[in-house]
Amino acid sequence: MILINGAVSNSLAATDRGLAYGDGVFRTLALRSGRPRAWSEHFRKLEHDCGALAIPCPAQAQLREELALLAEHEPDCAVKIVITRGSGQRGYAPPSPVAPTRIVMSFPLPQYPAELRQSGIKARLCSLRLGYQPALAGVKHLNRLENVLARAEWDDPETAEGLLLDAEGNAIGGTMTNLFIVENGALATPDLSRCGVAGVTRERIFARAAEHGIVCRIEHIAVDRVLRADEAFLVNSLIGVWQIRELGGKAWTPGPLAASVRRWLDEESD
Amino acid sequence: MILINGAVSNSLAATDRGLAYGDGVFRTLALRSGRPRAWSEHFRKLEHDCGALAIPCPAQAQLREELALLAEHEPDCAVKIVITRGSGQRGYAPPSPVAPTRIVMSFPLPQYPAELRQSGIKARLCSLRLGYQPALAGVKHLNRLENVLARAEWDDPETAEGLLLDAEGNAIGGTMTNLFIVENGALATPDLSRCGVAGVTRERIFARAAEHGIVCRIEHIAVDRVLRADEAFLVNSLIGVWQIRELGGKAWTPGPLAASVRRWLDEESD
Repeated sequence: MILINGAVSNSLAATDRGLAYGDGVFRTLALRSGRPRAWSEHFRKLEHDCGALAIPCPAQAQLREELALLAEHEPDCAVKIVITRGSGQRGYAPPSPVAPTRIVMSFPLPQYPAELRQSGIKARLCSLRLGYQPALAGVKHLNRLENVLARAEWDDPETAEGLLLDAEGNAIGGTMTNLFIVENGALATPDLSRCGVAGVTRERIFARAAEHGIVCRIEHIAVDRVLRADEAFLVNSLIGVWQIRELGGKAWTPGPLAASVRRWLDEESD
Repeated sequence: MILINGAVSNSLAATDRGLAYGDGVFRTLALRSGRPRAWSEHFRKLEHDCGALAIPCPAQAQLREELALLAEHEPDCAVKIVITRGSGQRGYAPPSPVAPTRIVMSFPLPQYPAELRQSGIKARLCSLRLGYQPALAGVKHLNRLENVLARAEWDDPETAEGLLLDAEGNAIGGTMTNLFIVENGALATPDLSRCGVAGVTRERIFARAAEHGIVCRIEHIAVDRVLRADEAFLVNSLIGVWQIRELGGKAWTPGPLAASVRRWLDEESD
């Protein structure tokens, strides 16, 4: 089911700036038993990301209504919310006033094998290096060709995710996930001020780690440091936590802190 | 008029990867008296850019037919051709097989004041610095948020274009144009191997310069060098040549080589 500006529709104006320039932002979240998971965090991030591009963010109540409509049809699904700067004349100058396009669409929840969650995943190091663009870093915008190119590097179904490095060889995150590592009982996750996407699950983990008295550092993390870590795991709103079992010649067994983080996220009420 | 995969339509599947990820490429060209200007160069570049993203490029004959349809309605217009990787399931992995989406749309030719062409333009130095991504540099893909952010930096109608620098302070091009400078009778244009879009008019100028025995260097050009140049001008398929009259506190009067380049492009038969 797809709602475009509140109306059921499968199609979008061909002149939309979301298509022309990737001029918009998006969120992906899970609806479970009709309820959007971590909704307040997702909405806050949507507001933030719209703000970063100076696109007016839809009202929360309006999005909640549209999610409720989706939930009537599919109480358990993945939802993607896309907000673009709307249609415009040809040319980069933003239209004035802006009439944003609001797309709320459901997809089947991805059916990953249960063992990915239980035993961890095989990941690969992607060849593509992420470029630096501080003006867009952290924002979940629609310019995602780097992710597309990185994801196209492999089609081995045994490899569940690829780890992306920046131009200096720092680990930034997976093609669709954020990265955490564990070192002596503390968490660390990449600094995303120059590239990467700062996801909601990453932020939820910051909050839960603080409550549980676990240090969580945000810093540049060279890939070698990932490979030496006690545990390494990837997170997003649909998969939750995937511990890395195999990456760049290194192997790990399931570790205690990844399991704790998974429990924190599962227990959390929305 | 808009043709989507050959059919008259104003709308596009909301699941198109062009919207989801900016997963596609585009061209903008002029139709004059029903004929697409510099068509063979545009098609060659479209093929190249599709190849860079591993998107199958439509057949030239098919695009020519669709341009002819547009030309019946509007013999003088701007045309935008967009090729995306088509619709897909949620997720970055490319669909297999790929069924590209082909959009051919007409717009009114932009009506710039004649004096921009005659007396030159006022340009500004944009604050946004282009990031480096060698895997995408030169390609006219749909990830254009940098251009959007740069173009949003000003709304003074007297300023016709903004010059973008890279992270090291090299001039790369305008938000919608390529840059050339003139130094002692020779041309130079920025190296676009790390960022920027390599336009068709830029390539046409390489060919014409060679024919006329004018040296044209492709190299890193620090912004100071632009400001010291004898002439500086911006080019694209719709505007042709705009000499810069004013930029960063420096003023120029119309120069002879910019005028020659304009004449070369005007004279050239397609």
